[in-house]
Amino acid sequence: MRDRIRLGLVGLGRMGRFHAANLAGRIPQAELVRIVDADESIAHENADRLGGIEWSTSYDDLLDDPEIEAVIVASPTPLHAEMAEAAAAAGKHVFCEKPISLDLGRTYEVIEAVRSAGVKMQVGFHRRFDPDYRAAKQRIAAGEAGEVYIFRTSLRDMRSPGFDYIRGSGGFFADVTLHDFDTARWMIGEIEEVTAFGAVLSDPGFEEVGDIDNAIVNLRFATGALGVIDNSRVAGYGYECSSEIMGSRATLRIDNHRRISVQTLTPDRMCQDYVSDFVERFADAYRAEMEHFLTALREDRDPEVTGADAAAAFVLAQAADRSYREGRTISLKRKEQDGEIFYEEVG
Amino acid sequence: MRDRIRLGLVGLGRMGRFHAANLAGRIPQAELVRIVDADESIAHENADRLGGIEWSTSYDDLLDDPEIEAVIVASPTPLHAEMAEAAAAAGKHVFCEKPISLDLGRTYEVIEAVRSAGVKMQVGFHRRFDPDYRAAKQRIAAGEAGEVYIFRTSLRDMRSPGFDYIRGSGGFFADVTLHDFDTARWMIGEIEEVTAFGAVLSDPGFEEVGDIDNAIVNLRFATGALGVIDNSRVAGYGYECSSEIMGSRATLRIDNHRRISVQTLTPDRMCQDYVSDFVERFADAYRAEMEHFLTALREDRDPEVTGADAAAAFVLAQAADRSYREGRTISLKRKEQDGEIFYEEVG
Amino acid sequence: MRDRIRLGLVGLGRMGRFHAANLAGRIPQAELVRIVDADESIAHENADRLGGIEWSTSYDDLLDDPEIEAVIVASPTPLHAEMAEAAAAAGKHVFCEKPISLDLGRTYEVIEAVRSAGVKMQVGFHRRFDPDYRAAKQRIAAGEAGEVYIFRTSLRDMRSPGFDYIRGSGGFFADVTLHDFDTARWMIGEIEEVTAFGAVLSDPGFEEVGDIDNAIVNLRFATGALGVIDNSRVAGYGYECSSEIMGSRATLRIDNHRRISVQTLTPDRMCQDYVSDFVERFADAYRAEMEHFLTALREDRDPEVTGADAAAAFVLAQAADRSYREGRTISLKRKEQDGEIFYEEVG
Amino acid sequence: MRDRIRLGLVGLGRMGRFHAANLAGRIPQAELVRIVDADESIAHENADRLGGIEWSTSYDDLLDDPEIEAVIVASPTPLHAEMAEAAAAAGKHVFCEKPISLDLGRTYEVIEAVRSAGVKMQVGFHRRFDPDYRAAKQRIAAGEAGEVYIFRTSLRDMRSPGFDYIRGSGGFFADVTLHDFDTARWMIGEIEEVTAFGAVLSDPGFEEVGDIDNAIVNLRFATGALGVIDNSRVAGYGYECSSEIMGSRATLRIDNHRRISVQTLTPDRMCQDYVSDFVERFADAYRAEMEHFLTALREDRDPEVTGADAAAAFVLAQAADRSYREGRTISLKRKEQDGEIFYEEVG
Repeated sequence: MRDRIRLGLVGLGRMGRFHAANLAGRIPQAELVRIVDADESIAHENADRLGGIEWSTSYDDLLDDPEIEAVIVASPTPLHAEMAEAAAAAGKHVFCEKPISLDLGRTYEVIEAVRSAGVKMQVGFHRRFDPDYRAAKQRIAAGEAGEVYIFRTSLRDMRSPGFDYIRGSGGFFADVTLHDFDTARWMIGEIEEVTAFGAVLSDPGFEEVGDIDNAIVNLRFATGALGVIDNSRVAGYGYECSSEIMGSRATLRIDNHRRISVQTLTPDRMCQDYVSDFVERFADAYRAEMEHFLTALREDRDPEVTGADAAAAFVLAQAADRSYREGRTISLKRKEQDGEIFYEEVG
Repeated sequence: MRDRIRLGLVGLGRMGRFHAANLAGRIPQAELVRIVDADESIAHENADRLGGIEWSTSYDDLLDDPEIEAVIVASPTPLHAEMAEAAAAAGKHVFCEKPISLDLGRTYEVIEAVRSAGVKMQVGFHRRFDPDYRAAKQRIAAGEAGEVYIFRTSLRDMRSPGFDYIRGSGGFFADVTLHDFDTARWMIGEIEEVTAFGAVLSDPGFEEVGDIDNAIVNLRFATGALGVIDNSRVAGYGYECSSEIMGSRATLRIDNHRRISVQTLTPDRMCQDYVSDFVERFADAYRAEMEHFLTALREDRDPEVTGADAAAAFVLAQAADRSYREGRTISLKRKEQDGEIFYEEVG
Repeated sequence: MRDRIRLGLVGLGRMGRFHAANLAGRIPQAELVRIVDADESIAHENADRLGGIEWSTSYDDLLDDPEIEAVIVASPTPLHAEMAEAAAAAGKHVFCEKPISLDLGRTYEVIEAVRSAGVKMQVGFHRRFDPDYRAAKQRIAAGEAGEVYIFRTSLRDMRSPGFDYIRGSGGFFADVTLHDFDTARWMIGEIEEVTAFGAVLSDPGFEEVGDIDNAIVNLRFATGALGVIDNSRVAGYGYECSSEIMGSRATLRIDNHRRISVQTLTPDRMCQDYVSDFVERFADAYRAEMEHFLTALREDRDPEVTGADAAAAFVLAQAADRSYREGRTISLKRKEQDGEIFYEEVG
Repeated sequence: MRDRIRLGLVGLGRMGRFHAANLAGRIPQAELVRIVDADESIAHENADRLGGIEWSTSYDDLLDDPEIEAVIVASPTPLHAEMAEAAAAAGKHVFCEKPISLDLGRTYEVIEAVRSAGVKMQVGFHRRFDPDYRAAKQRIAAGEAGEVYIFRTSLRDMRSPGFDYIRGSGGFFADVTLHDFDTARWMIGEIEEVTAFGAVLSDPGFEEVGDIDNAIVNLRFATGALGVIDNSRVAGYGYECSSEIMGSRATLRIDNHRRISVQTLTPDRMCQDYVSDFVERFADAYRAEMEHFLTALREDRDPEVTGADAAAAFVLAQAADRSYREGRTISLKRKEQDGEIFYEEVG
């Protein structure tokens, strides 16, 4: 097996900093050698905090470094596609945060660029690496649940990230529901119909920016199974990610997490802490997805989450958006190409 | 306050026997004096088991008994309307199991018959009397949840009651989802849109009788809140009735019940019993709904669950059925009449 | 089988009122015909509330009523022995709240009086009739837990009943731990050693009345198994009664109860209600112990909880008290007599 | 702040391998440069697996390496004292697995050797670094629980490690209960009395080697609070570590962990996985204790868990052992010396 993989990382926002901290000392397969951020002080400070690694404000510095074998793209969404393509063109493997692009055509171009460069790409669907979801998926695959009848999942943020973020987010379904579409496909199988309902309930500002704050999305899987996703930007009580798979032989439930397993009992009530954001809920999953990426590179295998998966989830998010706006069910067709599944709306 | 209310009960199927056992010794406000079932041996045996009360195979015997002040109609659904009308005509108050009728027109006729006879009627929406649901409803009404964003509820039977029952059930939405429609209206408020998805997943026999075995129903409330109901005839693991109300100030969750609070730990796992049917889950609620009915009679007040509530839930069930069959959202209009809310489909 | 049992009840304190309300309409085998309390207005008011049954301030009126077959003794502890004896002498069966007496000799006299009168007596160890404890006991008896290694149980009151009560309570171990001694014997088996630790931690007033407010009691069973009981008068958060049986094949846990199964989620925390007193926790058990008593009478069987059980628990409580005061382990000897187990301290 | 700390580790048993894997890539403050095990193939293989670090069968090689600043002593217990002293003599900081020695005098000698060498030592009481225990400790320290009345804790192994291990373990109380003594002192405060009960219940082999397989240990704290510990070598269902602190203002409960948060529902029951050993339960705590040690070194602070803490827990374990063997309560006296607390039995 190969030694540690030498990595560069671009984008030191919240996810970028979290990945960088993991890669600089918590993941044995990784050697983070350079970080890049357009903001010089951010780049500098983070490099210091990580023990004095190289830093720069120029992505080209990273691409020009012949030592770097793979790039973590954690920059803002509008830069994902271009940066992933550039990394591939420089012969470097790519871990790209989702979504690859808010434009489906650009998404396909990146997939093609990666393919023709002969490098590997993994997309940031971290939930596939969460120990709970992974165990549930294995049980379903092993037939323990029998035939799946209903898949139900909740993904909710505690509070809205603010309208600046919302405006550039690609819309509710592409920004929030995207993860659930990937989880649904991964755990249960391919999807043939999407029907979405949305609402603005917490703040008219969502309407002003043409978006929503709560949604329920119905799925019909190719197997005939029914699915339902509920999402919120404003759950208030905490961050929620929990799922249920009701099958003919067993029903599986993936609970949300408690921050700590301490109960506090005061007169007449028992209380427990709840997780409040995705980094807290999915800390293990974020580490595990990086370990998966690096192990795939070291063993020269394709990562489990491909560009085609990202494209499929994005098509489903677009279908949800259209369903919501047009008030009707959207059907989907899929085709296989080079061993990958691609989706298309058919009305 | 008045003494015990003297009651007659007709129909000694599962619910009838359960109500009779409660009324004959577990509910202080009740004096069950006569039971009726078309099957002589059933009527006889149950009368014996209940300590030797009067029995008969003729409903008229019950109506002709001047001592009896109120009638519990627990007969098969096709007899509900006629028996409720006859009781009203005989000047007796009526507790009628749901649904009043599988025909909306007949439902309205019964409501009218009760009204013009000047008697009281309560319909068997027992969940309104479950201590958990009641506590949650009170908290919502007190503003503890704030504005409701999402209402989510699951009602699932462990196994199908058999195709003989299914054929006469009025269809999935009228037989199963009906309870959830009533709960949704009661807890959250009036409903303006229904979109239903159904599937036959466990047994093609459901298709043969023109019915389904699993469904997901989406609601839009007059407040704008979103709702989602999932139902199954074949959950397999047990009987499920659990709900969640996500609001701006708090989220409330009503758990399903465990049969007993004993955990069994064997190597590597911890197991708990789960409830398997509605009588087990709602034993307290069935007693409480009877106590409510009898207390209303003793205090000469209208019961909380009226014929109009039954009609509203039935219209919503019909809308779900049409939505499922036509693949589109059904909108509803409501009007107030004599202080009651009535619903109408508007396409 | 016999008809309803005609009952009288003496003592309308908290437990007496609770039993009376059950017997007057919630327990089909019972017909409560007369209640007695030394306080006329209490007797009168309760009789009214129960639908107009007979009442009196004289226990003799009850004993003289030839219709009454059995008596519920729910008077203050100092009156238990005398009233139970008088009932037996009058040929009436007796349900006696625990303890029979704070004097062991008097306890044996009552047992003998009942025996020679040929009537039946049940003592108020309600926990034996709680569905959770009963299910656990059956599983242990069926061998599901294998050989028991450790028995652990908690019984805690939310707050102290006040020093007036404490003074007449017979002391901490006789008033609180007594129930746990009975549960330990019933679930696991006979006890050979008791070592008790006590403390005054909440209020020096406990020391002034010669009592304690918290205790831990260690048991060694005849099988060699270890046991540990923790008790408190001042748990603060609520009423607690929960147990664990760790065995070679399985470990069983009996959870405490939640008042209702509703979770409330507010920012960063999830809370649930907790039970606050024994009537709330054991409402079903109190009904079930009465049903057991009445069924035993109707079927002419001995009740499951006998006077000898009460005496055994009392001897163990005395041993705990001596152990605490003398700072050493107390050993116990037991002998069988007339098919019953009796205990004796041996130092 | 200083760079990474260069470390050597001796002893590649289960804990040693686990620490080595953490130190070689999962802990950013660490640079593991050399591992030592008496078994050449074990040393060699582990060095390979960790990415090709230095290895040796001689502890002296490690001590002679001037680059190494600190040593992790994870060798068998009989070697702890000597290796810790040698490390101190070589001017290297020491992390020593518990217990330092099974001889109290030797324990004090090691503490003195470390002190006079001017190096730092941390002892492996990992539970102090578990996020749940740490959160509970902070809440207690902040007064959230009020005055503590009862401390209750369970530590149980799923199955016995085998008699070879048992023979060299120092006995049940020194091997198992030791952790609970440290936790009790750390969370609640100093201990004045210990009373222990033990039993051989699963296998007479425990008696043959002069040991026990189950125990209950009672504590009286200097504050007057009561404590109770239950321990087992043979819990059967899994590994258990859970605690409860009942206080005047609140009661805190630290739950045991589930391996994953997935519920599996099959007919009539709901099951969840349970942790089966300490590495699974305390994976985060083992990482955190190493991070704490390394951070203390980098910041030139004393680690939180000192040699005096190890000695105190060991004295308490010896007291428990004597209490069990002599059937009586053992009192303890403590004195402060150089700012540390030391214990002494006083009969």
